[in-house]
Amino acid sequence: SSHLNLAVVAGDGIGTEVVEQGLLVLEQALRGTGTTVRTTDFDLGARRWHATGETLTDDDLAAIRTHDAILLGAIGDPGVPSGVLERGLLLKLRFALDHYVNLRPSRLYPGVTGPLAAPGEVDFVVVREGTEGPYVGNGGAIRVGTPHEVANEVSVNTAFGVERVVRDAFARAAARPRRQLTLVHKHNVLVHAGHLWRRTVEAVNAEFPDVTVDYLHVDAATIFLVTNPSRFDVIVTDNLFGDILTDLAAAITGGIGLAASANINPDRTAPSMFEPVHGSAPDIAGQGKADPTATVLSVAMLLDHVGLPGAARTVEAAVAADLAERGAAERVRSTAEVGKDLAARVAG
Amino acid sequence: SSHLNLAVVAGDGIGTEVVEQGLLVLEQALRGTGTTVRTTDFDLGARRWHATGETLTDDDLAAIRTHDAILLGAIGDPGVPSGVLERGLLLKLRFALDHYVNLRPSRLYPGVTGPLAAPGEVDFVVVREGTEGPYVGNGGAIRVGTPHEVANEVSVNTAFGVERVVRDAFARAAARPRRQLTLVHKHNVLVHAGHLWRRTVEAVNAEFPDVTVDYLHVDAATIFLVTNPSRFDVIVTDNLFGDILTDLAAAITGGIGLAASANINPDRTAPSMFEPVHGSAPDIAGQGKADPTATVLSVAMLLDHVGLPGAARTVEAAVAADLAERGAAERVRSTAEVGKDLAARVAG
Ligand SMILES: CC(C)[C@H](C(=O)O)[C@@H](O)C(=O)O
Ligand SMILES: CC(C)[C@H](C(=O)O)[C@@H](O)C(=O)O
Repeated sequence: SSHLNLAVVAGDGIGTEVVEQGLLVLEQALRGTGTTVRTTDFDLGARRWHATGETLTDDDLAAIRTHDAILLGAIGDPGVPSGVLERGLLLKLRFALDHYVNLRPSRLYPGVTGPLAAPGEVDFVVVREGTEGPYVGNGGAIRVGTPHEVANEVSVNTAFGVERVVRDAFARAAARPRRQLTLVHKHNVLVHAGHLWRRTVEAVNAEFPDVTVDYLHVDAATIFLVTNPSRFDVIVTDNLFGDILTDLAAAITGGIGLAASANINPDRTAPSMFEPVHGSAPDIAGQGKADPTATVLSVAMLLDHVGLPGAARTVEAAVAADLAERGAAERVRSTAEVGKDLAARVAG
Repeated sequence: SSHLNLAVVAGDGIGTEVVEQGLLVLEQALRGTGTTVRTTDFDLGARRWHATGETLTDDDLAAIRTHDAILLGAIGDPGVPSGVLERGLLLKLRFALDHYVNLRPSRLYPGVTGPLAAPGEVDFVVVREGTEGPYVGNGGAIRVGTPHEVANEVSVNTAFGVERVVRDAFARAAARPRRQLTLVHKHNVLVHAGHLWRRTVEAVNAEFPDVTVDYLHVDAATIFLVTNPSRFDVIVTDNLFGDILTDLAAAITGGIGLAASANINPDRTAPSMFEPVHGSAPDIAGQGKADPTATVLSVAMLLDHVGLPGAARTVEAAVAADLAERGAAERVRSTAEVGKDLAARVAG
């Protein structure tokens, strides 16, 4: 039997609540696979920062690196200045561990009602670049706080960085029945970055002749996400556009309570990280109100990543069955109840 | 009687079709106001570029400057490389004429069915900054076409530029019944630009104590636009976020066939420009299929800008009445028929 060494960053707010349920389901899903999970808890996030002023030390990072994967809940509370934990912890993990594929699937499960009147069948995945773009932290400001302040943000895009994520997206598209890849950018305005993305997609397409490619400006993509989400199969896009599109994608498929994500290092030079798209939701924290489903679906992505697709499908099927029956439910269940029910379904 | 000297840039594709109807309605709306319109046509856009290689010459710009306002249809065709006309003509006009307030109202008119199942009442306006941000064209690339290419895009934000548009947005919010202003940015990642926006909104709020302010990250804003669009009154945001949000806003209120916009120079040091949010739509151009309503609503914004709010309201009322009856219509009308009907309603 083998071990899955999992670094757990439960984080703040509802993060700890949903991660507990995610781990419950994970353990259940691993039964009979010959793999057992060993978790190491990392005390990272707002609590730690308030206590010590630390976000992610070199030692933390080195310790996390020794694990096979990371399960992250959510980071942040209103007492921490904006950007400190995002850039000092969450994005630092994504960048340091080279999570260049930020994978965010959107699926409208039967029984789930979203805001769209006629969504049709929705089943696409956004491959969001995770280590470049406007997220690199290469901005700066002068004369801060004066009438002459200038604040710049630099989006850095490299052939190396764009090509590797585009190739990953093509491979994913090639493995799906529809084999359709949509590049989303804004190359009519962001001409330098946009044309690099466009040329790269054209070039890599030669390696995947079966994949059909199209292009949308990011503004137009938001329109199609609400008027015709069925048109999407795989979307590849930059870090910021991916951030925006995946929240919208979550909204049209039942909300961020259901939206899973994986920050993947496809080269496996460092552990990949699995996290719900939602945040720490301080307004509902500690009340057992959070939906652990997004975390559970992130656990399914983790299982896929560690080579246990059977267990991953079992978890997804449990979620699908649970969602199908929610509409008929008498009352809204607590976080722990949903977790228990999902674990029970996984146990069969 | 006075004259309204209007520069007309009908442009390409459906641009020429919708502008013709916009002018028809404008003339009708001006009757009895004591103002007459004198138009100057400017041959700008893809046709001109194909013929001469020119986008917007200094002479063109100087001639346009002598007018009171600009009515623009749409620019571009697939034969022009991406970015050439956007940056060389459309954005050049916005930047050169200091259109720092890009105003984009969204209203769900009775009778209009959008993609949302339960939109509620939707009536908000996006004040999009128009002369800064990632639109400044301050990017560049090295080693283009090689595996070592680096392509950067720089978002430039100044206290001067942010403050003037924020103040304009506050003034608009203060004049509306709900007096609510939402700043949309991404200050947890784009910390330099984001914090400049945030500090500016806080500071200017002191001048408008009656206005309630809140803040949303751009990703969260897309969620609320589909789950609870009624929550918005005035949104103020940067050039790129505004581009994205206003296409989404158009989609949820009936589509870009209805979405009007005004590129305003509030200091009146140069003519403001009124244009539908949609593009030149080469796929339906020349077929009389384009909806001129967005252009007609842009004409209403023009009338407001030139101090004829009565005429503006008449045009809006004509559009509202027309939209209310569309659902019951036997057939889809042509561009010219819609224009004629709207002009007839304006005539009373
Ligand atoms: C918290 C924030 C830094 C993060 C992002 O922008 O990537 C979040 O919105 C997400 O999508 O995971
Ligand atoms: C055509 C393009 C340059 C333009 C923009 O990005 O501003 C358009 O999308 C708009 O919203 O007016």
